[in-house]
Amino acid sequence: MTERAPFHPTEVLLLGPGPSPVSHRVLAAQSAPVLGHLDPEFLGLMDRVKADLRALFSTENDFTLPISATGSAGMEACIVNLVEPGDRVVVGIHGVFGERMKDLVQRQGGNAIEVRADYGTALDSAAMAQAIANGDTKLVCFVHAETSTGVLQPPEPICAAAKGAGALVLMDCVTSLGGTRVALDEWGVDAAYSGTQKCLGVPPGLSPVSFSEAALEKARNRKNKPTSWYLDVNLLSSYWGSDRVYHHTAPISSIYGLAAGLDDVFDEGMEARFERHRAAAQSLYTELETIGLSCLVPENLRTPMLTSVVVPDGVDPGAVQKHLRSAHHIEVGGGLGTLKGKVWRIGLMGHGARETSVRRVVTALRDALAR
Amino acid sequence: MTERAPFHPTEVLLLGPGPSPVSHRVLAAQSAPVLGHLDPEFLGLMDRVKADLRALFSTENDFTLPISATGSAGMEACIVNLVEPGDRVVVGIHGVFGERMKDLVQRQGGNAIEVRADYGTALDSAAMAQAIANGDTKLVCFVHAETSTGVLQPPEPICAAAKGAGALVLMDCVTSLGGTRVALDEWGVDAAYSGTQKCLGVPPGLSPVSFSEAALEKARNRKNKPTSWYLDVNLLSSYWGSDRVYHHTAPISSIYGLAAGLDDVFDEGMEARFERHRAAAQSLYTELETIGLSCLVPENLRTPMLTSVVVPDGVDPGAVQKHLRSAHHIEVGGGLGTLKGKVWRIGLMGHGARETSVRRVVTALRDALAR
Repeated sequence: MTERAPFHPTEVLLLGPGPSPVSHRVLAAQSAPVLGHLDPEFLGLMDRVKADLRALFSTENDFTLPISATGSAGMEACIVNLVEPGDRVVVGIHGVFGERMKDLVQRQGGNAIEVRADYGTALDSAAMAQAIANGDTKLVCFVHAETSTGVLQPPEPICAAAKGAGALVLMDCVTSLGGTRVALDEWGVDAAYSGTQKCLGVPPGLSPVSFSEAALEKARNRKNKPTSWYLDVNLLSSYWGSDRVYHHTAPISSIYGLAAGLDDVFDEGMEARFERHRAAAQSLYTELETIGLSCLVPENLRTPMLTSVVVPDGVDPGAVQKHLRSAHHIEVGGGLGTLKGKVWRIGLMGHGARETSVRRVVTALRDALAR
Repeated sequence: MTERAPFHPTEVLLLGPGPSPVSHRVLAAQSAPVLGHLDPEFLGLMDRVKADLRALFSTENDFTLPISATGSAGMEACIVNLVEPGDRVVVGIHGVFGERMKDLVQRQGGNAIEVRADYGTALDSAAMAQAIANGDTKLVCFVHAETSTGVLQPPEPICAAAKGAGALVLMDCVTSLGGTRVALDEWGVDAAYSGTQKCLGVPPGLSPVSFSEAALEKARNRKNKPTSWYLDVNLLSSYWGSDRVYHHTAPISSIYGLAAGLDDVFDEGMEARFERHRAAAQSLYTELETIGLSCLVPENLRTPMLTSVVVPDGVDPGAVQKHLRSAHHIEVGGGLGTLKGKVWRIGLMGHGARETSVRRVVTALRDALAR
């Protein structure tokens, strides 16, 4: 019998919107022997992961754990548990991920009230506050760092308006967690979700989420069960909590990877990590200028981990991406939604947020544009 | 700064209901460099995985792919796409996973008609046929290999009854796929889901699913979108099909692992693999008898990959499991649902379905029972 040819992926420097570069420690952790999902050693690791995630989210929320699926499933977990048919939900939309939240709210029968801002700008807090006050709002949703544009949204005014109206707050932290400060308890965020493949520097596959007591209470007091069994927080609580009731078979290797990624985060220190992301972004802005490229988002609104770069007139953005990938082994992202064909998205996330990444991508871009 | 202590899991022989033992090839594949989820090399690997899964499911279904979450999410993917509010759905229940299907049907607003059989027995085909004929049945659901009991359900009579009534058929293959013959097209199964952590010998985290054209048509012609965005087959088709439209960020490392696991399957050959599972099970039955233990399920109904062993009177099943784990580094499962405390579940799955596993677990059981 002939053995099948093994798959040997090329080493690509991942500077798109995610996945981001992964450290050797994390990759090695994923090849450790697999334990059972109720094994005492594994249960201990789950507790460690929960504690680390609480520190990163800056929260005391007991329900803070990785959902066994990617970041989009984290969004779904929050919305299916927190939205009941007929609920008035204010959704801030200034990029693709806000659009997706609205779609999910509607799939649960929620009444989604949109507050829109142009892609590349921030949501207007006053417009959000007005929409929130304009009815019996149950939930307010917005994206902290919009991965489709590179805008970092100031959370405090939106959270304050929601609290004033007695509404819960759901914040998307997919791209912000691990790369910039996230402070759920201080800001008054009731539910949040993230992904492992951005600033945590772990392969895609898990979605860290956190629910406050108020959010759990809403989930517990629903008239009907949520439409999802897999993402039902009441069932997840029983497995990840002290009951250890079997729910689903946790993705063991992925959780090993996440635990190792969290080791990377806390060995470096959260503040040092955030500063590294800021410094790398600052260097990217400067270097892009030297080759005549400009950023989509005004500097005061930019999120350090993802920069949207305007495609110059007459340049084929896809051809540049292909050249970067084939000649330089670098991945950068294209535009999504209304920005399709108009921007490149350069991610400096997790393990990849460093000066050497900036040099390599800017040198490669100069080469591609000169062709 | 002190570095955190690394996590070094004990090597445990996994002979429970899953996860099952994983080969070194699969573990090593999970530590390969991460590619982007739209990278051409990764898209090529996706196509290879799809083709391999079609061979394992014995189907021509174009929509055959791994859902980016565990086996339970595969169940959810099938039901959220195929059930609309008010649909009459016949669900065969003879174990925990049938119960779960019913719960999920109800969460979608479906009208679940239960056909029950005792845990440890098979569903009665005539009772299923009668329930199907008794109304305008849209979907018929049953479990091929009930992981909670160890029963292998003959699929043909149920499928024939469903076809006769113009209903779609959904079959749970979580424990059967890769360990015994599954033939979707021949049997007339319209939708099926599995998990990676059983007879495929891959860590948990992905759920291979397959939809026939008739099932896709049902999903395309729904009155309303399914309640799940993450598991919407119309959106998943666009990413896994020729369009390659971004949906979510696929779990790259997990798919590397699955691809390597499929390499293991086809290097060995499907028939040889099924025969290995049969032989290991046969040996387990014989060896259990020598130490005075009996199986719950009559031999003609047993699924080779999972055997429920009756706990003798006066024995504490949990204490035995603990001794196996601590003194012998072996995991076996306990009973679920109505079988809680009454059986142990011994899995001989994937890489672990071999004579050495049988020797080790039976020797360890003898030791535990003698204490």
